[in-house]
Amino acid sequence: MKLKLYVDRMSQPSRAVIIFCKLNGIEFEEVSTELFKRQQLSPEFEEVNPMKQVPAIMDGRFKLFESHAILRYLACAFPGIADHWYPADLYRRTKVESVLDWHHSNLHRGAAGYTFNTVLAPAFGLPLNPKAAAKYEKVLLASLAKIDGQPSIADLSLVCEIMQLEILDEKDRERIIGPYKRVLKWIDDAKNAMEPHLQEVHVILFKAKEKFHKQRYAVGSSIPQSSRKPEFHSKM
Amino acid sequence: MKLKLYVDRMSQPSRAVIIFCKLNGIEFEEVSTELFKRQQLSPEFEEVNPMKQVPAIMDGRFKLFESHAILRYLACAFPGIADHWYPADLYRRTKVESVLDWHHSNLHRGAAGYTFNTVLAPAFGLPLNPKAAAKYEKVLLASLAKIDGQPSIADLSLVCEIMQLEILDEKDRERIIGPYKRVLKWIDDAKNAMEPHLQEVHVILFKAKEKFHKQRYAVGSSIPQSSRKPEFHSKM
Repeated sequence: MKLKLYVDRMSQPSRAVIIFCKLNGIEFEEVSTELFKRQQLSPEFEEVNPMKQVPAIMDGRFKLFESHAILRYLACAFPGIADHWYPADLYRRTKVESVLDWHHSNLHRGAAGYTFNTVLAPAFGLPLNPKAAAKYEKVLLASLAKIDGQPSIADLSLVCEIMQLEILDEKDRERIIGPYKRVLKWIDDAKNAMEPHLQEVHVILFKAKEKFHKQRYAVGSSIPQSSRKPEFHSKM
Repeated sequence: MKLKLYVDRMSQPSRAVIIFCKLNGIEFEEVSTELFKRQQLSPEFEEVNPMKQVPAIMDGRFKLFESHAILRYLACAFPGIADHWYPADLYRRTKVESVLDWHHSNLHRGAAGYTFNTVLAPAFGLPLNPKAAAKYEKVLLASLAKIDGQPSIADLSLVCEIMQLEILDEKDRERIIGPYKRVLKWIDDAKNAMEPHLQEVHVILFKAKEKFHKQRYAVGSSIPQSSRKPEFHSKM
């Protein structure tokens, strides 16, 4: 029975899991579970994940939630996964663990809080909140200042978190991430190592960006389709 | 060389690490790193943990931060740790991983956000924030509704998070945790399994509770010392 991924490509942890499978030749069935449509609250999905969050997986009868736990599991349960993703050596693996844990309360908290309060909130029927955004921006900037390369599932989780910033206005994104040259270099390296899957799985985000941009600037110039791809290839 | 724990007993993840060591007979040197005094920002501590957070450890030359990563490491690196803490079996271990990850964005976010905005903020020179507290209370209640027993390091991490609620006013704590009979039972079981260390390591919290209570109700009746122990032994 094929591995089932319950995911929304609009969610960065969902994308990390999809990309991991694609990079490692793990066959899967993608079960789209859209957060904007609140599909994660359905009784059918609650059977899969009582926590009502994506991503979640079913591997045969085995059900699992939380993207980091899923990445660890996939790295261990499928054959032939290169050791750098989740090293067998205790000391190297533990270093990966600490970055995965750090991600939750730092980079993810900052990036998710900032994008939600500057762009995504209206899609959930909530107002944008500049004061909250300012708070999360501080967390985000402090987190970006700490990032260093980690050739592992932590790497993948962090890259997907930073890719989520693509949904911001160019100006905001440049202001936030531009000064972190080491992060830009690291993202570029990760992109090279993860193409074509990294780009393919993020297409939904670039489309959503256009949509949100149009909604906010209903009159005037929205970013033309043709300018999207070069932006993506530029140093973030 | 003895394991060094850089901890503040006022922090729930610090306490989880200390209790794990005590329960499992792991000898350690406790290096107090007080958050109220901002000792985690010192250049000496930055050498130990560039993320400037507690807990952190040094085991010989090996440095590590993030409590969950530390718990995983200790469970693997020291001899004779019972399997239930961090099972060797992939499927059982992965279930523990998902609870550890879930903790970050759910129970911890709710409990830490709520206690900070109702009690702890003034100790960091910030005002109490009832509006933020209301937001985190929702997260906390939703998290408590999800808890189930996990005889593992996830168990320990969650118990220490919930023990942090001891710092709230009795009224608030009872209102929040009282309806969750299953959680109360689970906490009682955990307490029984982890005494005397669970109580001993939390003494600092009960003392701080008295202090904060006195500060807020500078005139009038503060909770007398003698009433503390029975409260702790009552069902939370």
